[in-house]
Amino acid sequence: MNSIPFHKTKLIGGFWKERQDVVLSTSLESVRARFEETGRFDAFNFAWKEGDPFRPHIFWDSDIAKWIEGASYALMLSPDSSLESYIDSVIEKICEHQEADGYFNIYFSVVEPGKRFTRRTDHELYDAGHLIEAAIAYAQATGKTAFLEAMCRYADLIDKIFRKEGSASFVTPGHEEIELALVKLYRYTGSRKYLDLALFFVDRRGCQQEEQYKDFAKQGYCQDRLPVREETEAIGHAVRAVYLYCALADLYAETGDQSLLDAAHRMFNSITEKRMYITGGIGSSHAGEAFTLDYDLPNLTAYAETCAALGLALFSRRMSSIEPDGRYADTAERAMYNGFLSGMSLDGRAFFYENPLEMIPRLKSRDVTCRSVGIRLPITQRLEVFGCSCCPPNVLRFINSIADFLYSTDKDTLYIHHYMDSETESERLKICQKTEYPYEGKICFSICSDLYRKVAFRIPGWCSSFRLECNGETIECTPVRGYVTVCLPQDNNVLVLDLSLEPLVMEADPRVLSDCGCVALTYGPLVFCMESVDNGEGLRDLAVDTQSLIFDRNGPMGLPCIRGNGYRRTIPDTLYHPVSHTYLSQSVTFIPYYAFANRGESEMCVWFRES
Amino acid sequence: MNSIPFHKTKLIGGFWKERQDVVLSTSLESVRARFEETGRFDAFNFAWKEGDPFRPHIFWDSDIAKWIEGASYALMLSPDSSLESYIDSVIEKICEHQEADGYFNIYFSVVEPGKRFTRRTDHELYDAGHLIEAAIAYAQATGKTAFLEAMCRYADLIDKIFRKEGSASFVTPGHEEIELALVKLYRYTGSRKYLDLALFFVDRRGCQQEEQYKDFAKQGYCQDRLPVREETEAIGHAVRAVYLYCALADLYAETGDQSLLDAAHRMFNSITEKRMYITGGIGSSHAGEAFTLDYDLPNLTAYAETCAALGLALFSRRMSSIEPDGRYADTAERAMYNGFLSGMSLDGRAFFYENPLEMIPRLKSRDVTCRSVGIRLPITQRLEVFGCSCCPPNVLRFINSIADFLYSTDKDTLYIHHYMDSETESERLKICQKTEYPYEGKICFSICSDLYRKVAFRIPGWCSSFRLECNGETIECTPVRGYVTVCLPQDNNVLVLDLSLEPLVMEADPRVLSDCGCVALTYGPLVFCMESVDNGEGLRDLAVDTQSLIFDRNGPMGLPCIRGNGYRRTIPDTLYHPVSHTYLSQSVTFIPYYAFANRGESEMCVWFRES
Repeated sequence: MNSIPFHKTKLIGGFWKERQDVVLSTSLESVRARFEETGRFDAFNFAWKEGDPFRPHIFWDSDIAKWIEGASYALMLSPDSSLESYIDSVIEKICEHQEADGYFNIYFSVVEPGKRFTRRTDHELYDAGHLIEAAIAYAQATGKTAFLEAMCRYADLIDKIFRKEGSASFVTPGHEEIELALVKLYRYTGSRKYLDLALFFVDRRGCQQEEQYKDFAKQGYCQDRLPVREETEAIGHAVRAVYLYCALADLYAETGDQSLLDAAHRMFNSITEKRMYITGGIGSSHAGEAFTLDYDLPNLTAYAETCAALGLALFSRRMSSIEPDGRYADTAERAMYNGFLSGMSLDGRAFFYENPLEMIPRLKSRDVTCRSVGIRLPITQRLEVFGCSCCPPNVLRFINSIADFLYSTDKDTLYIHHYMDSETESERLKICQKTEYPYEGKICFSICSDLYRKVAFRIPGWCSSFRLECNGETIECTPVRGYVTVCLPQDNNVLVLDLSLEPLVMEADPRVLSDCGCVALTYGPLVFCMESVDNGEGLRDLAVDTQSLIFDRNGPMGLPCIRGNGYRRTIPDTLYHPVSHTYLSQSVTFIPYYAFANRGESEMCVWFRES
Repeated sequence: MNSIPFHKTKLIGGFWKERQDVVLSTSLESVRARFEETGRFDAFNFAWKEGDPFRPHIFWDSDIAKWIEGASYALMLSPDSSLESYIDSVIEKICEHQEADGYFNIYFSVVEPGKRFTRRTDHELYDAGHLIEAAIAYAQATGKTAFLEAMCRYADLIDKIFRKEGSASFVTPGHEEIELALVKLYRYTGSRKYLDLALFFVDRRGCQQEEQYKDFAKQGYCQDRLPVREETEAIGHAVRAVYLYCALADLYAETGDQSLLDAAHRMFNSITEKRMYITGGIGSSHAGEAFTLDYDLPNLTAYAETCAALGLALFSRRMSSIEPDGRYADTAERAMYNGFLSGMSLDGRAFFYENPLEMIPRLKSRDVTCRSVGIRLPITQRLEVFGCSCCPPNVLRFINSIADFLYSTDKDTLYIHHYMDSETESERLKICQKTEYPYEGKICFSICSDLYRKVAFRIPGWCSSFRLECNGETIECTPVRGYVTVCLPQDNNVLVLDLSLEPLVMEADPRVLSDCGCVALTYGPLVFCMESVDNGEGLRDLAVDTQSLIFDRNGPMGLPCIRGNGYRRTIPDTLYHPVSHTYLSQSVTFIPYYAFANRGESEMCVWFRES
């Protein structure tokens, strides 16, 4: 199958258009300004010397690369000559400071020259991957190829040193990313060696003992304990993991190597059946930013990095384009609307690195007498920039290219994976979606094509009933692996899909310790949560009458909400006492999870008790 | 009021007699053997030199001192000449190696000579306190006074250096203990200077900034942020705290200084109303082994050190002897039967330092790829000795002297605080208690005295109804502050107290986050718990029909248990799904909390959900 790239689609209105507008109008500039203030752009002057402020960090190249990628997508959505010149000025510096043999890395040119390719832990190939992705994006956006050519020369050097000579101090990247970037580079340039290099990195992973992380982590930390084809579970640093799994899918798509697809299946199943929050967040432990054990998904201390949810969406999107199975787009949607989107504030200026499913601000002061930390809790308010600021520019590039998720095609079938108010124009194909999804379940399509005779609509996993109409006629159909396929009777078709939507009370597998005795509330793809700003302090003791819940388009912050009734216990005289079953009733309000922590510090919970 | 000391009482049978027999027959020797193996006794040869194994630790003096104290109490319960000679041999070494000016500390004589009284953090005065307590115990047990005289000389030196000269590098002990020991020494010797020194240490605490813990902890860590009379809450390292609070009570008893009693009240209330587990465990955080915030009582990561529960019992006992208020003995009982007693295995050989209220062994391997620790969990099986082995000998001395808790007297009233099958003979007083308490609520007393005309029975806080009979006649009475007082009509009286006992379903204050939505089960003073060895893995998902619970004297391990019915969810196909309300029923068995972890590694929980 082929995906229809995002720039063939114009978001017209609705949920994602609003988020994209915020990115274009605010976030792109805000992140740029923060990166300037923190010396990240100046680092490209290669002028830093010992004693200067803003010592370049090993991953700053990637921060700026992701920003350039996001900005390039912005240029594809709407031209902006001043933004373009700004990027040109950065690219000029990149070309100016690229070493004669093609090498480019700020840290290893300026801070520790002579140490290139000696430390697997130091994100060098990760930086290269993001630079390659940025270079492709900028070439796509502007047709200018200087950056791309520079990065091809760098990729050639990497190919020589790692694949041909084996002369680096390590064999595979400590932090995956370059694998998927090289497949992209192969697809864009047609140059087979980049695919071979990506395959080399994937094939060699876990085939030898690379010890460089030994003080800090075990082999699994960077998916290294076994060759990828033998690994049975999603393991280690979650962002590294899903970037690698993206490459598995990409490489299967290019090579047809079934063992790669089998591995991708195992990883997808391990994540979505055992190691994923209901928000699509993954990597439950701050220590190692990593997957831990099956069903170990604590809410209060959840790490669930924004980049990891994003990576899970990217992996799922790739799987959607390999085989039609609704679980992939269900998972992408779970992450996109929840654990990824919570990573950015509603105003687009501030970001979360970690996305917990419960927040109790007063516990921050828990270790009142001792400096050593008893429990580590995520921050309670989003920040504009972090020391390790991978998430903010990642959010920009993701939201600007979100329409990538919508469609794929095979010989005669158009697959519609996601629903967004939008217009798409591709070769011999025009699609229009009118919808207020995910707040309303109705989507009206007009599909014009003389090429595709069938259209496959994804029926989301959360949807228990739907109605489909084609050119005014109701179609009786049952989803197969999450899709219903309709034959298009003519070149111009009007189709209406109506997905039933209602608040759903969800439970987790009983082996998820943290969610035992609790339920969560969803509405379509959206996970909802309670905040104390709406419901009062002490959310753990608030039990909700789930029969009373009603969806309301007019909730706090101008967003939809779900309202109902709840019960709290009264405050007693003694710390412990026989159960009294005395309760106070109150109204309760749930807001979409992605919108939590936008009104100052507040308790928050996704999982709650039923009354 | 005066307490009747433990050696006036002989335990005849029942709960504590059984525990004491285990200590006398097994634990005393087992702890001694472990302390020999680890070089603790050899350290008293003062022969260690750099390069030798078993480098003396700063608190080894106290480990042996507590063992000697416990062993001395054993001698008072039943003479044992070989045990006595063994202790004599240790005392000989103490006297031999005591410095000319009276100083005694292994570490600061052998490892760092010349550094005495320079580091507040190094437990020097804490060691001294335990040596003083041991010396008094041994003098009481044997009449031999060499050890006591040696320790008086040491106390005289401390008095000179700290109180008279102020020539040490610090003013008050980093770890409290010597204060209560000095009061004991004053009471035993009648020498007022020891009382003055205890008062000095208590008065000066928090009156100056002593910074020696600054890298590790804040002032509150050792109850130092405010003068004791101004402190409003129980704070910092829990063992240090309760040892200090014991001294507050002792010093009030000796001086009548109301401000000390007020402070003791505030500390008692802070602990028992806001900062204590239902087991009587205190100090909820491993970091600092400390109190944290009000109502912050996590179950899985509870620290709840054995010594801290013991110290809370000691503090409560002192308060019971100051004023008749049942809350004190209720608290002592809560700690004694639960969070203290869980510190020793049923066979008396192994010990817990930490006493969590939930255990999930599989979480131990949580950080599978990363060496840094994400959540710190207590060990799941008791050990025979620890590097820091304060708890094991503390348990011995406590259980051997447990009858200390039973009685106090004032001019004409005998206060009966606790119920144990026992016979007591004191001046113009004989008391016999026949009872199977706490498994049965009936206690038959014979009380013979021509001195006490009234007897006050404590009606435990958990007891909702009781019956009292004096010489065959039912007495109608209502407890006042937890006690009912009966006039004794004659010198020889037979009284029967029958406390109603039934399984009680308890809840915590809703501000205790960890217990929201959960209940706990008690029976008299005993807290019960579930273990997976009886109930299957996955206790978090097991909901119990609390209407079905029945007490059964014949449970696992030959102990009583509570049996009933419970429900689990079935294992579903998906990680998240709409609530199904499908359950499997099963029988459930609760065992006494103190007996958990005696059958290998097992899940355990005190707090559970009702079905």
